[in-house]
Parts: sequence; structure tokens; C-alpha cells
Amino acid sequence: MTPEARLAQLGLQLEPPAPAVARYVGAVAIGGLLFVSGHGPFRAGDFVFKGKLGRDLDVETGQQAARLVALNMLSTIKATIGELDRVKRVVKLLILVNSMPDFTEQHRVANGASELLIDVFGQERGPHARSAIGVPTLPFGIAVEIEGVFALDVR
Amino acid sequence: MTPEARLAQLGLQLEPPAPAVARYVGAVAIGGLLFVSGHGPFRAGDFVFKGKLGRDLDVETGQQAARLVALNMLSTIKATIGELDRVKRVVKLLILVNSMPDFTEQHRVANGASELLIDVFGQERGPHARSAIGVPTLPFGIAVEIEGVFALDVR
Amino acid sequence: MTPEARLAQLGLQLEPPAPAVARYVGAVAIGGLLFVSGHGPFRAGDFVFKGKLGRDLDVETGQQAARLVALNMLSTIKATIGELDRVKRVVKLLILVNSMPDFTEQHRVANGASELLIDVFGQERGPHARSAIGVPTLPFGIAVEIEGVFALDVR
Repeated sequence: MTPEARLAQLGLQLEPPAPAVARYVGAVAIGGLLFVSGHGPFRAGDFVFKGKLGRDLDVETGQQAARLVALNMLSTIKATIGELDRVKRVVKLLILVNSMPDFTEQHRVANGASELLIDVFGQERGPHARSAIGVPTLPFGIAVEIEGVFALDVR
Repeated sequence: MTPEARLAQLGLQLEPPAPAVARYVGAVAIGGLLFVSGHGPFRAGDFVFKGKLGRDLDVETGQQAARLVALNMLSTIKATIGELDRVKRVVKLLILVNSMPDFTEQHRVANGASELLIDVFGQERGPHARSAIGVPTLPFGIAVEIEGVFALDVR
Repeated sequence: MTPEARLAQLGLQLEPPAPAVARYVGAVAIGGLLFVSGHGPFRAGDFVFKGKLGRDLDVETGQQAARLVALNMLSTIKATIGELDRVKRVVKLLILVNSMPDFTEQHRVANGASELLIDVFGQERGPHARSAIGVPTLPFGIAVEIEGVFALDVR
């Protein structure tokens, strides 16, 4: 099954990729690796899931935000390389969680993104290295930002 | 035009690269990629632009800091690979902005670096993936730290 | 001397790699690069060295934490690729220091990790690019988290 078919099976639809909010591009492919910019929880033209974990959002809501971020990364990847099936491995994620100083469950929030990617790409291609960390603030006040490295099938 | 010629046209001069402040090197080239260490706003032998965005520096000053950091990265790159023209693509930046918890314009600060690199390397080689995030503090109290990945012409 | 022999000479022993605390793997090898997940100071089945620099831990204790994290990364690398000798270069570290907003010596804390890796891999393979930054909080309240990129001997 292609990743696109799996997304459909999950009832998920890729929106057009969020426009870059500044002077950069969504992803750069080079030498078999795809470097994906930091993405936020963007939906229907605006950022959603704003605020800090440990004050404004609970872990479950943070996981939903992380899942939406991962979905947005897929939109950008598809727009960049054409077919998600060209991803031969999810390599590495850096998951930044907008956190109060005493919130220490960034790894649980991050699972919202990791689980979606494993679900879409499967047990061979989906498991990845990752870091989940707390940050005191993010652009636009979004709750989660994620960047990633993906390995591509070089055609 | 070479990147060096473009720098001269912009009236910018590369200083000697800042010495590593600890046990590391400024950049490592491997397999066609150049991984550049986190750099700060260093000038004439000392760090400048200290403090936090949202309290000590405004966005415009933060952009100047980010621009200086990018210039310092170019010094390190040139010292490492000889000619900036060997950079075939700016691939990815991670831009860390020393921020108060309610400052949410890291992406605007980051543009100071992104715009300089696009200006120096041009529209083909300059556009890059990137993440801009807030951090609560940085070494020496500097306002901006940036690390990067660049693709090299492999000779 | 192999890195393993050097570890023995230093009186250091690799423990079994810490289990991933969530939905990810410890490292992914791809195209000659090994991307290692964010690791924490794990020992004998639990995280140690919890708290924030600038309040709960001094620089020297932070360095010990960073050194233990680097040792744990070596456990994961060995479990992933078999022999540490397959590492041909330590490429890049991102060192995240759990910090109070006025603590600005992340680079000194980070040296605890950098020095161990240079000691184990030697002056040819050990020196690396790196970024050391402050973060307001980390998973489980650990004091230091480190992720890394290593170049592998491709067999």
C-alpha cells in the first residue's frame, strides 16, 4: 500500500502545504536526503493549537497538535518530491514542544507525530531517530514545531 | 559572480573565523555535506548583540544579530573549504533565538540570516530549509545562535 | 587502538543501551551517516542528573551528566552498528542543557560530552561540529540531552 493509500484509509487528507512564513522553503532534497523545515500545526489557512504545554494544553491535546504537524510535513514532502512512496525511511525528527519550565513530558507529546509517521510509512520505513525537547516559546505561539530528515529513493 | 564577489559588492568583509570557545571545530565536511557548528554574533574579538528578544532587543536588532551570525558562518565555511563557490546549496539552518517566554517572532529575527545567505549565494543555491525557535538562554548570553548544513561541490 | 579498547583503558564500561522511552529507535544508519536520537543521562535502569543548570546543578556536575550521555550514545551506536571502530568521524552534536534563564555556560557543560568522544575516537576521528544551547525543560527533568550525527565506514 502506498503512503497516500494509507492516509486515505486513516481518513486523513493532505491540505495544500502551508506557505513558508518567511524567507525559506519547505524542504530541500540533496544527495538522497530530504531536509524538511520546521513545521507548525497549520489548518485551513491558519495556525491552530497555540499555547504552552503545562499551562494551556494537556498532553493529549499536544499529541493532536504533533499529529497535525506531521501531517503538514507530509503535505510539504509530497509537494516537493511528488510521491510519498519515494520516502524510503523516516530518518530523524527534532520535536520542539512549547513548554512551561516544569513540564517534562515532551516525549509523550512527540508520540503524536511519531505514531502517525510509523502508521503511514509502516514498520520498515517508519521507525526513526528523534529528539523531543522543551522550548519556552515558538513562532506565532504555536504549541509544537517539528523538523525532520527523510531518506529518499534516488531515481 | 562568486559569493566572495557578491560579499564585496554588499560591502561586507569576512573576518577571521571566531575561535571555537570549547572542545569542538567550526565545521566538518563529510560525504558532500558540510555540518557547521552553532555560531554566535562575534565581531572584532568578542561577542556582540547579547540579551533576550522581547526584553533587551527588538526584532530589527535581532535581525542584525542574525545577519552577523550568518556572516560569521561564511568565515568558517571559507576557512574550511577554501572557496565559498564550492557551496552548491544552503540546505538547512537551525536558528535559535534567545527569547522571553512571550516573544513569538523568531521567524522574523531569523530572516536576517536567511536573507544574507540568499543574497550571497543567489536564488538557485541560497533558498534553504530552516527552523526558527525560541530558547531561554544561550552561551555568553548571545541573542542568536545558528547552526547549518550546506551541500558541497565534491571535487 | 579500537574505541572499545580505549574505553576499557579509561575504566569505562558500556551498559546496555537505554530503552527508547517512546515511539522511536535509538539510531538510524543511512547513506554512510548515523543519526542518533536524543539521549539522556541513564544509568542502571533510570535517569540520573535531573534538574536545571544555574539552580540545581553546577557546571562540573553538568559536565558529568554530559559525559554520561555521551557514553550512553556509544552504547546505542555499538548496539546499532556492531563495532565502534566503524565510526570514521564524529560529525555533529546538538547539546541541550536544561537551564535557568540566566545560566550562560552551556558550552562548558557540553565539553563533558565532547571531551569523552575525542578521547575515545582520537584526534583524527573525534573532533566535531556542535551546538550547545539552553532549554527550559527536558523529558523527565533530565539536565542534559544530546543528539548526534556520525559518519560510518560503509562496508
